[in-house]
Amino acid sequence: MQIAPRTNAAVSADVVIFTIYEGRLSVLLVRRVTAPYAGLWCLPGGLLDEGEALDDCAQRVLLEKTGIQGVYLEQLYTFGQPGRDPRGRVLSVAYYALVPYDRLHVRGGVERLDWFPEDELPPLAFDHRQIVGAARRRLVGKLEYSTIALQFMPEEFTLSSLQGVYETILGERLDKRNFRKRLQALNCLEDTGKRYSGGKHRPARLYRAKSPGEVRIIK
Amino acid sequence: MQIAPRTNAAVSADVVIFTIYEGRLSVLLVRRVTAPYAGLWCLPGGLLDEGEALDDCAQRVLLEKTGIQGVYLEQLYTFGQPGRDPRGRVLSVAYYALVPYDRLHVRGGVERLDWFPEDELPPLAFDHRQIVGAARRRLVGKLEYSTIALQFMPEEFTLSSLQGVYETILGERLDKRNFRKRLQALNCLEDTGKRYSGGKHRPARLYRAKSPGEVRIIK
Repeated sequence: MQIAPRTNAAVSADVVIFTIYEGRLSVLLVRRVTAPYAGLWCLPGGLLDEGEALDDCAQRVLLEKTGIQGVYLEQLYTFGQPGRDPRGRVLSVAYYALVPYDRLHVRGGVERLDWFPEDELPPLAFDHRQIVGAARRRLVGKLEYSTIALQFMPEEFTLSSLQGVYETILGERLDKRNFRKRLQALNCLEDTGKRYSGGKHRPARLYRAKSPGEVRIIK
Repeated sequence: MQIAPRTNAAVSADVVIFTIYEGRLSVLLVRRVTAPYAGLWCLPGGLLDEGEALDDCAQRVLLEKTGIQGVYLEQLYTFGQPGRDPRGRVLSVAYYALVPYDRLHVRGGVERLDWFPEDELPPLAFDHRQIVGAARRRLVGKLEYSTIALQFMPEEFTLSSLQGVYETILGERLDKRNFRKRLQALNCLEDTGKRYSGGKHRPARLYRAKSPGEVRIIK
């Protein structure tokens, strides 16, 4: 007993890999060398293999392009408009990943791979601009009601640097006192007992996430 | 120039159709008559056609099973675990739809189609129980930060009946005064000037949604 597909669709996982790079929300792009859209930038992606789960395909793309595993990766949306790929029917199951800036292996300038600020992207191949837009909206939405921002942080960080990440993604300044109250209510951080004295201000406390891998939804 | 799929996957759109039926959050199911899982209930679904957009496929499923169009329909998640369908690789692009209870054409008991309370589902075929669970979580989440609950309402309704819908979905009682304050802040309703006098209480004001089709995200 077999199910006969009514389309001969290929399936790819395309991953919007976000980081905070030089103080800006940035996306990792690949320059295409072959048609269609040769010379344009696009999202890292790969075709789904026989017997491969969707999440595993996205993990594989992430690992191949950045050398990183074990970061936050979430399925975003499936893009399947006919005609979105001139070569034939391709469904893109889009994912987004958040990479802490201290774990970046690809720091830009690598052959065919580079980071671009999300608000200054070059023209992208296919419908990838739309996919990045959807990923950014999901991220901004989750920032409001989850602890997702911690996924961008190194193991130990100051509250100011965490606030900076929120401000970078939201594109607005936050009131320091309100921000700290909100954080306290979340009860997601613990004091390391150490202090960071790199800046020109007095040494600031270093915190770490209580459950580093977990993204908690705030009710 | 052709893209060669590395899987021979079929793609289906499966739709979790929610309504509030007899005061309970309910899901429309179809009884399977053929193998696999003959005799079990499953979500209404259909295979993606050549040249058909995913959203159009989901709309078609909804129209075929309920005779309804123009209701809230949102892509949920793509389920693609190898082995989820014993007949071969099938990706299910899952959607959920919200149908106002006064527009139900299928009131249950129709051949092969019936409504089931979401918390008392029969055993479902495939991974459809998991899909319903994901849809319910998305709905509950959106209830907190959007005007999505209005999609369940008839054209004119009382505030008590709207509160009832929230309570039904959340599975908890809400404080009437807080609920009305929150609604007022949303500024999504307008007074019809009419009153509903069907109950045993004094006649209650009838409201309507200011933008019936729109689901507004609350910041």
